Amino acid sequence: MSSLSPAVAASSVSTTPQNTINIGMIGLGTVGTGTVKLIQRQSHLALKAIAVRDAGKDRGINGLDTSIVTTDSMSVATHPDIHILIEVAGGIDEAKALIEAALNAGKHVVTANKALIAQHGPELFALAKVNKVAILFEAAVAGGIPILMPLKMCLAANKIQEIAGILNGTTNYMLTRMMKDGWTYQDALDKAQALGYAEADPTSDVEGVDAAYKIAILTGLATNQWVNVDDMTIEGITKITPQDIDYAKRFGFAIRLVALARLEGDKPDVRVHPMLVSGDHPLATVDNEYNAIWVKGDAVGDAMFYGKGAGELPTASSVMGDVLALASDLKAGNVHVAVAMEVALQGASAVHPIGETMNRYYIRLTTSDEPGVLAKLGDAFGVEQVSLESFLQLPSDKSKGEASLMIVTHEAQEAKVQRALAQIGKMPATRDVACVLRVL
Amino acid sequence: MSSLSPAVAASSVSTTPQNTINIGMIGLGTVGTGTVKLIQRQSHLALKAIAVRDAGKDRGINGLDTSIVTTDSMSVATHPDIHILIEVAGGIDEAKALIEAALNAGKHVVTANKALIAQHGPELFALAKVNKVAILFEAAVAGGIPILMPLKMCLAANKIQEIAGILNGTTNYMLTRMMKDGWTYQDALDKAQALGYAEADPTSDVEGVDAAYKIAILTGLATNQWVNVDDMTIEGITKITPQDIDYAKRFGFAIRLVALARLEGDKPDVRVHPMLVSGDHPLATVDNEYNAIWVKGDAVGDAMFYGKGAGELPTASSVMGDVLALASDLKAGNVHVAVAMEVALQGASAVHPIGETMNRYYIRLTTSDEPGVLAKLGDAFGVEQVSLESFLQLPSDKSKGEASLMIVTHEAQEAKVQRALAQIGKMPATRDVACVLRVL
Repeated sequence: MSSLSPAVAASSVSTTPQNTINIGMIGLGTVGTGTVKLIQRQSHLALKAIAVRDAGKDRGINGLDTSIVTTDSMSVATHPDIHILIEVAGGIDEAKALIEAALNAGKHVVTANKALIAQHGPELFALAKVNKVAILFEAAVAGGIPILMPLKMCLAANKIQEIAGILNGTTNYMLTRMMKDGWTYQDALDKAQALGYAEADPTSDVEGVDAAYKIAILTGLATNQWVNVDDMTIEGITKITPQDIDYAKRFGFAIRLVALARLEGDKPDVRVHPMLVSGDHPLATVDNEYNAIWVKGDAVGDAMFYGKGAGELPTASSVMGDVLALASDLKAGNVHVAVAMEVALQGASAVHPIGETMNRYYIRLTTSDEPGVLAKLGDAFGVEQVSLESFLQLPSDKSKGEASLMIVTHEAQEAKVQRALAQIGKMPATRDVACVLRVL
Repeated sequence: MSSLSPAVAASSVSTTPQNTINIGMIGLGTVGTGTVKLIQRQSHLALKAIAVRDAGKDRGINGLDTSIVTTDSMSVATHPDIHILIEVAGGIDEAKALIEAALNAGKHVVTANKALIAQHGPELFALAKVNKVAILFEAAVAGGIPILMPLKMCLAANKIQEIAGILNGTTNYMLTRMMKDGWTYQDALDKAQALGYAEADPTSDVEGVDAAYKIAILTGLATNQWVNVDDMTIEGITKITPQDIDYAKRFGFAIRLVALARLEGDKPDVRVHPMLVSGDHPLATVDNEYNAIWVKGDAVGDAMFYGKGAGELPTASSVMGDVLALASDLKAGNVHVAVAMEVALQGASAVHPIGETMNRYYIRLTTSDEPGVLAKLGDAFGVEQVSLESFLQLPSDKSKGEASLMIVTHEAQEAKVQRALAQIGKMPATRDVACVLRVL
């Protein structure tokens, strides 16, 4: 149980219940603009100061008092009148310094900053605790979808065994269009950028880093042990071809960028990579820019949370869920919701090494169309005790003398499969190991 | 804002933080057994008394101290040592009397009793408030799925515009099997009973009453106005035939028992009936005994919550989510989560009359296969200004001289569609208006 007494915690801001809760905000981009609109609806919330980079820019927000907009972000973070600081500017170093200053000044903090929480969560949680204030971050994972509070409170009686999430809307949009419209990766990226789903530099999305931050946070909340994103295996979608997607379909699979946390072993098996998802798995039906988090708990069984993972108002909805919970606490003169949501870390955890993880694999090979190839393939897998679940040889391209083979393995250890594939790669008959994907 | 001060509220049970939270329980059936198993994991919870009907029955629970089991349920509800009463016995009158006694004795209450909350929620919430204790009921809606806390807290910044739920696992199992295996209604019911999904008397499930309680509760939480289940249109699945399901498929629809709440008008439009759900709607993919709640909020957009709607451990998971939140409150010496979850009713609301609701309709007709029938049908709809979205005439059964017609209308007022159908029913060419279903 937390040693953070609600009565004491509240006293750091006020010893008496508050009727109006004053708010400061860092950042007035997409999410910030949505958040201002939602704050304007709440008569008990007063926006006192907003920090921006360019104070002259018109944000198109009706009724915004521009006199509260400043470029002096530190003055907002430590503004004497505010009870809650909302951080929706993103970035790491400056955001961290501002949030630390706010916590030290006795402000509660609500942030949507997944990179900051994933990388520096433990320090910030400790600093919040020392200062008897709360730091909440529902919007940092899966945008508008309520997931952190349901996971931490509603499912508190469960041992969380597995979490599998589609946590990046940009890549899910791209994979959906590649699957449904036959687009190439580049087509899909161009369109995602044109629609504003992808940044000019899409690296964090397409390389899986954004999703990695989110699954690291979910793992921390589910296990009370923080994992280091740098220890995780993170693979993006840049190598996925329309052919992979088409062939996967023939096996009844969709290809999704899955953020996975298997939590039953000694060390959490946490990673992000594209996976084949069986058509009857709930995650297979999550299309376009939507996100979903599939959770397996030992009491609840499997549950899924679905919705918009990004966007002005969806993300602002989650920011405001946290703000309203804190405001309710502050009006009552305590911070109990914050206590219930407190991340009581029991330390850090190493990540289960990828080579020791168990997975099913989908493998697509091109071989020369000659007798004896199947037997050699079978030997290579057999030596490593990797057994095959299904096998499909497509009609050969006679002109090239090639055969295309698709294999789905039973569950096998990653290192053994990689050794078998290395062996297969060396076989003279092998033209190309075209695609290797894990199967959810 | 609630006038329930956490400090005062906690004083009704204890003026000092509690290290061990004592629990009494009414009912030791399926959910009760699961709940005991989950309580046993928590070292800070102590089960002090359990009321059952048959004290001699072996429940097969390891480590259960049978000396705490009694048939005197009132002695459990008002047990001097308990802080929280869990009610998982079901029923109305006796459960209500026991919960009222517990609230009056200063006990917090956690219940899974959807019928009781739907029918008597406002009285019980008022009584809890007077006694400065909490009544929580996450398990009453959609079993293991976290929905009440996410709806009320995480989505607090939203105006909830619409809720559409598959809230009854028994009927969803039956409809899934009818759709996938071509079973008749009776086949599906027999199998559901054999599997323990359906009661010996399945009326509450198959007639939609169970789902009606749940959507009434969700409506109350989303609007702070309570609706009377007796005012709702409630239609079950007993008239659905394999033919309806097969024909719906041809239009790309699944048939689901949908509990619907449209919340944008003056009065909530709340009802339960079978609906055609488009194959690309997230609810269409919710199969078998699973439940799901699709929520549309003006900030979050659409979100969905999916999981097991019944069963020993899934339902116990939700019961325990509430118990652990209360226990955390009590250990800290206040009941703030309970305050945040308090249903601050602003009164009751009439339900929007079904005749005034707007829906799309799927209509299946058998007519005599003669010239001029289409024109007459068109006239009947046209007079009522019901326009048609799609129309399919199946190959006729020449031997009977019959034609089968399927129609999907654009959105139209229920009363107008019913008048058009009454007119069509009187036409000499009409053999049968075989099926009329609303479309989600």
